Amino acid sequence: MSELKITFLGTGSARPTPQRSVACVALSLGGEAVLFDCGEGAQLQATRAGFKPSRLHAVCITHFHGDHINGLPGFIGTMGLNGHRDRVALVSPRGLRRYLQVLRELSILHPAFPLDLHDAAQDVPFATDDWRIESFPLDHRLPCHGYLFREKDLPGRFDLEHAIALGIPRGPLFGKLQRGESVRLDDGRTISPEQVLGLPRRGRSVAYVTDTRPCSHLVEAVRGVDVLIHEATYTHEFADLANERGHSTAVQAAEVARDAGVGRLILTHVSTRYVRARPLLREAQAVFPNTVVARDLDVFDVPVHD
Amino acid sequence: MSELKITFLGTGSARPTPQRSVACVALSLGGEAVLFDCGEGAQLQATRAGFKPSRLHAVCITHFHGDHINGLPGFIGTMGLNGHRDRVALVSPRGLRRYLQVLRELSILHPAFPLDLHDAAQDVPFATDDWRIESFPLDHRLPCHGYLFREKDLPGRFDLEHAIALGIPRGPLFGKLQRGESVRLDDGRTISPEQVLGLPRRGRSVAYVTDTRPCSHLVEAVRGVDVLIHEATYTHEFADLANERGHSTAVQAAEVARDAGVGRLILTHVSTRYVRARPLLREAQAVFPNTVVARDLDVFDVPVHD
Repeated sequence: MSELKITFLGTGSARPTPQRSVACVALSLGGEAVLFDCGEGAQLQATRAGFKPSRLHAVCITHFHGDHINGLPGFIGTMGLNGHRDRVALVSPRGLRRYLQVLRELSILHPAFPLDLHDAAQDVPFATDDWRIESFPLDHRLPCHGYLFREKDLPGRFDLEHAIALGIPRGPLFGKLQRGESVRLDDGRTISPEQVLGLPRRGRSVAYVTDTRPCSHLVEAVRGVDVLIHEATYTHEFADLANERGHSTAVQAAEVARDAGVGRLILTHVSTRYVRARPLLREAQAVFPNTVVARDLDVFDVPVHD
Repeated sequence: MSELKITFLGTGSARPTPQRSVACVALSLGGEAVLFDCGEGAQLQATRAGFKPSRLHAVCITHFHGDHINGLPGFIGTMGLNGHRDRVALVSPRGLRRYLQVLRELSILHPAFPLDLHDAAQDVPFATDDWRIESFPLDHRLPCHGYLFREKDLPGRFDLEHAIALGIPRGPLFGKLQRGESVRLDDGRTISPEQVLGLPRRGRSVAYVTDTRPCSHLVEAVRGVDVLIHEATYTHEFADLANERGHSTAVQAAEVARDAGVGRLILTHVSTRYVRARPLLREAQAVFPNTVVARDLDVFDVPVHD
């Protein structure tokens, strides 16, 4: 089974600091990758993390505040310099076309590969053979979308012992059965995949939620995901400020995680006022224990379901 | 006399690396500052260098390749978050207005202070009471300008010993004389500033030249400057490649320094192919000995002329 990894390239908010670059999270499944947001410095953080965007399929921008998009021109430009020539999808609120057009006109960015623009409100799900990306609206100070990465369901585990007991010879027939095809043995018997495969396993899922106030549909949108990446710009003592600025507190993020029954909560988009993340972590864990606060260059594995 | 300091915030070319961020140089004179270029990561490098842009007067962009401008939206945005409200001049080739317009429309950047746009080909010199910025065309792959920072001539040194010998009482009269005003003593004598001041001293000057092929008028444009900051993307063995891409070699930069009789040459805009700068330095010093290759966060003082 392919590893599903989450790499935090930036975990800060508003402005980068030496400790926290601004918003950017890379998801990789096998060799394929998706980026959520692309704040300034994302390309350099990718270098530091050893994240190679050679098989980048999509960049999903939540909204057009600078700390979520200012790294995009450099990221795309450097991918081109590094020889990338494959199509990349850009999923975002409306307006990206105009931005790219001006960058092109001024020669700030001449992308070296085709960019497919997707309106986050209309042109998703965006899907490949192995996974898809859904979007849902958030409640910030301007149009903003959360994203959900959902792996397709995986075939059940192959029962090697039982396959051998059934007299199936080792070799290509095993592969066919694992891919869900029936096979015919030399002795005339037909073996169907159900005889040697366990139940299909639920694909893994990761939701990326920033920037937003708590909003009523959010719990449904992220229900049951394996990992919820959620902004926690402030501690709860600043709930009014958070609300005014269209952000969430760590407690509010944890409430979403709890109510939606997610597997794990990873907090990000931390205000520069927090040099240490402990106050955010403590208040979130009181509501939803399986919480961490991401640091720059942290990598998390999302295990396959049994 | 105010210190004139040059701080290298980025010394690389094309893409940032952990060793070299992309193009950005800060000049500060007293508390005032000017930025030359603003590549991605400039704001974070400014933090690392302890460079506070609170009295930033101007940002001069040489050209619109991404590695020279992609840090500008973040730099301006963060200055606003940090409370900057004073006017800043943006000197650049034509087109910046359109870029800023789109950033504003999409909410990527709402500058918190007024920006005065100056066309580098037409609206310079840009001057304050103490210094001015001139521009001159370079020869790159698109419109590109070099810049010259020129301090106004300084009054001559105050001859304290002679002033005391003349019977001028210590105190405010000294200041008046230093500012070029005549003063009348209690005994009826009038002292003119020439009696106690040396000859006016030539203001300091720094030229910033990147990206460019060698071009015929360059030597005249930077003649006699105290410090020439010049790109040296390649060593001379890649002269053909440099020429094709609109760049200079370290030897070519040194030839400009030598022919223009500058005080000191500082090389920057180093290709990522050079992990160590020694090859660039060695070939440049063979032509112009007073050369260094800038590293990120290097600070150089430009001494006052005697």
